[in-house]
Amino acid sequence: MMLYMGRRAREAAAALALASTEAKNAALLLMAERIEAAAPKILEANAQDLEAARAKGRDTAFLDRLALTESGIAAMAGGLREIAALADPVGQVMARWTRPNGLEISRIRVPLGVVGIIYESRPNVTADAAGLCLKSGNAAILRSGSESFLSSLVIANILSEALVEAQLPDASIQLVPTVDRSAVGFMLGGLSGAIDVIVPRGGKDLVGRVQAEARLPVFAHLEGVCHVYVHGGADLDMARRIVLNAKMRRTGICGAAETLLVDRAAAPTHLAPLVKMLIEAGCEVRGDPATEAADPRVKPASEDDWPKEYLDAVIAVKMVDGLDEAIAHIARYGSQHTDAIVTEDRKAAEAFLARIDSAIVLHNASTQFADGGEFGMGAEIGIATGRFHARGPVGVEQLTIFKYVVRGQGQTRP
Amino acid sequence: MMLYMGRRAREAAAALALASTEAKNAALLLMAERIEAAAPKILEANAQDLEAARAKGRDTAFLDRLALTESGIAAMAGGLREIAALADPVGQVMARWTRPNGLEISRIRVPLGVVGIIYESRPNVTADAAGLCLKSGNAAILRSGSESFLSSLVIANILSEALVEAQLPDASIQLVPTVDRSAVGFMLGGLSGAIDVIVPRGGKDLVGRVQAEARLPVFAHLEGVCHVYVHGGADLDMARRIVLNAKMRRTGICGAAETLLVDRAAAPTHLAPLVKMLIEAGCEVRGDPATEAADPRVKPASEDDWPKEYLDAVIAVKMVDGLDEAIAHIARYGSQHTDAIVTEDRKAAEAFLARIDSAIVLHNASTQFADGGEFGMGAEIGIATGRFHARGPVGVEQLTIFKYVVRGQGQTRP
Repeated sequence: MMLYMGRRAREAAAALALASTEAKNAALLLMAERIEAAAPKILEANAQDLEAARAKGRDTAFLDRLALTESGIAAMAGGLREIAALADPVGQVMARWTRPNGLEISRIRVPLGVVGIIYESRPNVTADAAGLCLKSGNAAILRSGSESFLSSLVIANILSEALVEAQLPDASIQLVPTVDRSAVGFMLGGLSGAIDVIVPRGGKDLVGRVQAEARLPVFAHLEGVCHVYVHGGADLDMARRIVLNAKMRRTGICGAAETLLVDRAAAPTHLAPLVKMLIEAGCEVRGDPATEAADPRVKPASEDDWPKEYLDAVIAVKMVDGLDEAIAHIARYGSQHTDAIVTEDRKAAEAFLARIDSAIVLHNASTQFADGGEFGMGAEIGIATGRFHARGPVGVEQLTIFKYVVRGQGQTRP
Repeated sequence: MMLYMGRRAREAAAALALASTEAKNAALLLMAERIEAAAPKILEANAQDLEAARAKGRDTAFLDRLALTESGIAAMAGGLREIAALADPVGQVMARWTRPNGLEISRIRVPLGVVGIIYESRPNVTADAAGLCLKSGNAAILRSGSESFLSSLVIANILSEALVEAQLPDASIQLVPTVDRSAVGFMLGGLSGAIDVIVPRGGKDLVGRVQAEARLPVFAHLEGVCHVYVHGGADLDMARRIVLNAKMRRTGICGAAETLLVDRAAAPTHLAPLVKMLIEAGCEVRGDPATEAADPRVKPASEDDWPKEYLDAVIAVKMVDGLDEAIAHIARYGSQHTDAIVTEDRKAAEAFLARIDSAIVLHNASTQFADGGEFGMGAEIGIATGRFHARGPVGVEQLTIFKYVVRGQGQTRP
């Protein structure tokens, strides 16, 4: 059954690769409309999912992620409309040059092919991920979490109906029609070459399993252990604003700061005010001895705190002796996701930006900007920390590859 | 031991990522010089390898690939000088834009990290692959075939000495110091995350094994079943030149044509002359009934011939009924490597270029142009038919990924 889905996805992908921008956009707008119109039906399915999850004793955070509301459904439709408004990456000429022998070579964007998305409790991923795949000309095989299955199924059926009406293959978007765990294993094996890339959307357990077991490329980040380094040349007011935003704007997202590094040169003037600000904003501070000395409310940090992704109102704070120690700390404990330096010293900033090997490095800005929308790339299917193909926010462009088109006038190779 | 090599490569890669273009080029030029100077020593080691291979009863083709000559050594040095002359991809700004909030976002090329190269009998791969990796800021772990090990070892030692003299880490280029087969298995497992990509260089058995067993990305093509499609609108003279060159210029390279498709509309005028030309050039022609009828010297083709990569003076020839059948044939039997159409009909050409899903598609030019040098990309580490990260010739640019550098003035996310 899974292999059959794979074959249908491959066929759909071949048709989608040649679909016009107009047809894809028409389908996306139709999907948005139909999702809004079907809100009562989606909410009804979601209520059933929620009831079952409650009966299983799932916690509040889980139920929050699972729950859909009228405004959540409107946001899903709005997301599809935003994707329709994005430039179509397929067919874009990435480069074009002419050889001395007259051959005209173009590097043209083409879709990756078939994207497998494995997600957990958030049913809105069904529409978001499917929309991004459609716009970039890829077929999508979606494997929803068992707890959100009924909600996802209603949404996926609406998307398929819109595809048919827009005269695109209905198999462009397929939801695995089972909550059997073995489906995930099949997908991680690539369905005999039918899937080109896997995108896991969910917690660390899911992403870790996918990264360990997948026999094909994965777009993902396991965690975001993001650092803010307040350099000796940092302006205190700017450091305050950036640290507070990076840690506390939303603590549960991957771009939230987890560790604050304060340079020894800035510590006498900056460490105590930053710690005080964080504690008074409701953040628990776990510090090294220098930080403990700065405020009696600081708890001692242990070695476990440095590589920790709290995803909560907790931060680890350490004093470092210069740029080299800051960079070494981030290389050792970071997750190559997003790291920032705060300083007025341009030279130190450039050294940090060059030497930190993370998907996103920032100077004088909050780590919470780690987001495809904030980058102006439109929606993102996730953020990747791998070093292959895509890195940072994965938007429609990153869901493409290229081919070379060569136009000649009868040239043969000497 | 292999894990230790992996750790050293990772450390070297961190230093290489920040190495200046000048330092890398100085090392490449020094390598070229030292290789020329050490020609007698290299030839002596190669003679030992050749003697052992002869004693093992290796065939002539194998010994040809293994054998180094004075001019082969000069070509190796010349290749390194060419790589030195290429633009440095590292640090290139691929894109730069400013957001409405003032954030300046740049996408900057950075090296992939550590490249593992697994090769067979050709000792010159040692210098070629190592040079491309060095220029692109990547550390290389080289695993030579057992039969070329002594030759490769002498070359690798010369490269390492040049690195040290140019003040770059000697572990930037490491040759696996064993001919034990288990090393390949370790490399395909990625050495605990120390290797970022594997490049197999060798025959179909090696590439097939690497593709099947690698737990990390692979740049490779299993085979090049390349097609030339002579459309109804083809000029006969041009078709003659292109078909002859595509098949016979060199029959053993991956871009050599293996199948000729002649459109029904062109067959009455073009089929017999093309077949006659090929046979008289020394090529065996295996044809479908239409081709057999065109010349008594044609042998009947069987179903096995259509997906066959002969790498020899043999070609399969088939009459097809229009563009759709030609495209369907290539989709079914091709290897997504390189395919060409010959026609004066621009519309048919554009449809072929758009619909054929191969790394390289050509109009009115020989498939033998499938080569990084011919594309103007400089040397290539290989040709990839995968759909991930790189496709077609893999040169220094394709050995890079990017990171985002964000410059702010204190921005926080609302």
